[in-house]
Amino acid sequence: MNKSELFKAREQRILSAALVTARGKGALDFRMADVARAAECSVGTLYGHFLSKEDMMAALVQISLQQRHEWIARLNEMELTPMERFVTLLASERVRLLRDDVLAQLELLVSHTELWRRAADQRQLALRALVEELVKALEGILQDARQQNLLAVGEAECSTLVARARALLLGFQLQSSRQTLAPTAELAETDGLLDALANLLAGAGLAEGHTEWRTRCREALRQYPALPEVAIQAPNAA
Amino acid sequence: MNKSELFKAREQRILSAALVTARGKGALDFRMADVARAAECSVGTLYGHFLSKEDMMAALVQISLQQRHEWIARLNEMELTPMERFVTLLASERVRLLRDDVLAQLELLVSHTELWRRAADQRQLALRALVEELVKALEGILQDARQQNLLAVGEAECSTLVARARALLLGFQLQSSRQTLAPTAELAETDGLLDALANLLAGAGLAEGHTEWRTRCREALRQYPALPEVAIQAPNAA
Repeated sequence: MNKSELFKAREQRILSAALVTARGKGALDFRMADVARAAECSVGTLYGHFLSKEDMMAALVQISLQQRHEWIARLNEMELTPMERFVTLLASERVRLLRDDVLAQLELLVSHTELWRRAADQRQLALRALVEELVKALEGILQDARQQNLLAVGEAECSTLVARARALLLGFQLQSSRQTLAPTAELAETDGLLDALANLLAGAGLAEGHTEWRTRCREALRQYPALPEVAIQAPNAA
Repeated sequence: MNKSELFKAREQRILSAALVTARGKGALDFRMADVARAAECSVGTLYGHFLSKEDMMAALVQISLQQRHEWIARLNEMELTPMERFVTLLASERVRLLRDDVLAQLELLVSHTELWRRAADQRQLALRALVEELVKALEGILQDARQQNLLAVGEAECSTLVARARALLLGFQLQSSRQTLAPTAELAETDGLLDALANLLAGAGLAEGHTEWRTRCREALRQYPALPEVAIQAPNAA
């Protein structure tokens, strides 16, 4: 390994150690000293890779969000109608977040509290770009629907529709999360989310004429890939 | 003042100091020692009132949520249709949260991260009861609509509708919050939230036949009371 490869391998080892530490001590409470111990390096070495603890939290969120990139490409190759594609892409976010409580908590903290301000500027830009990619993908699907004459609304309304669908998803995710003080049982089932998103689209005129769409979305969701093992799952992988 | 009155007055002074401290140092970062200094008491005294820092955060959230109690009663006396009442009650949550960034952050942290686990059991119960009160009020409004033959869905569907409307509100709130890394501009306007909630209700068959409803909801929202000064605004009030 050359110097740059060694640096990357160490960064992966540190991130694996950070995730393991966050799982043990809690997403908010883990300390840099704990991560250093788990990664078998000095605290100083950690700061050679990350600006702050919050920058490290943001890096874990970044890895989780990067999974979306390939998934969007795969989804675009599946034989789905625009409506099914839209619903599946958003619902897959729920699948991603349900899989790992600690990553879900880190994502909430980094994305919706002041913590992101302490991440490196570059990291903030990268995270914003990942959000933007999802928005663009969803808007692209609605553009397809318009071109196929399935949706008779203007471009501005498409943006509003995407914004509302994302808000609905986030609300579903949080209100039914295991970390929430008073979780809402009604929101726990995947079918409920599919229906709520479908209703939102139907209100704008994009509806499936048949009931099979739910089955097709669920089948597509089952193909959502597992977390990359090497990247953050195994602390001794690097 | 007798002993119990003195205890209460001191608790209010401490909570005022905690809010001022959280405003200065950040909702996540304020320390008990800072609060003690601002409240002109010892750290030990703080722990005589609160189990932990998180319990103190939860107490601030509790005060903010208690405002809803009187507001719900007032709203029920206003001349509004069930649909307008439902939309106004939910949208008033947004008004409450927009008013104070730090209280909004504390509410997110206490309600949707593991922090609430460190609040006193009694406090957790009180917070859950306040959530439950909102749910019951919203479900009650839909019951009224059913009795007036304005809504032709079953009771279970009413609960689902309330759950989805609350999820939509939370998503709107978070995605457009000033603390969010990549806020969604499309969600910033109150009218957008009113429309999104109205669409959700219209999908279930509860729609207003006229366009005046938006004006009526906005007028009702303007009557939402200010934060109680004595309770948490003025650190020297007690």
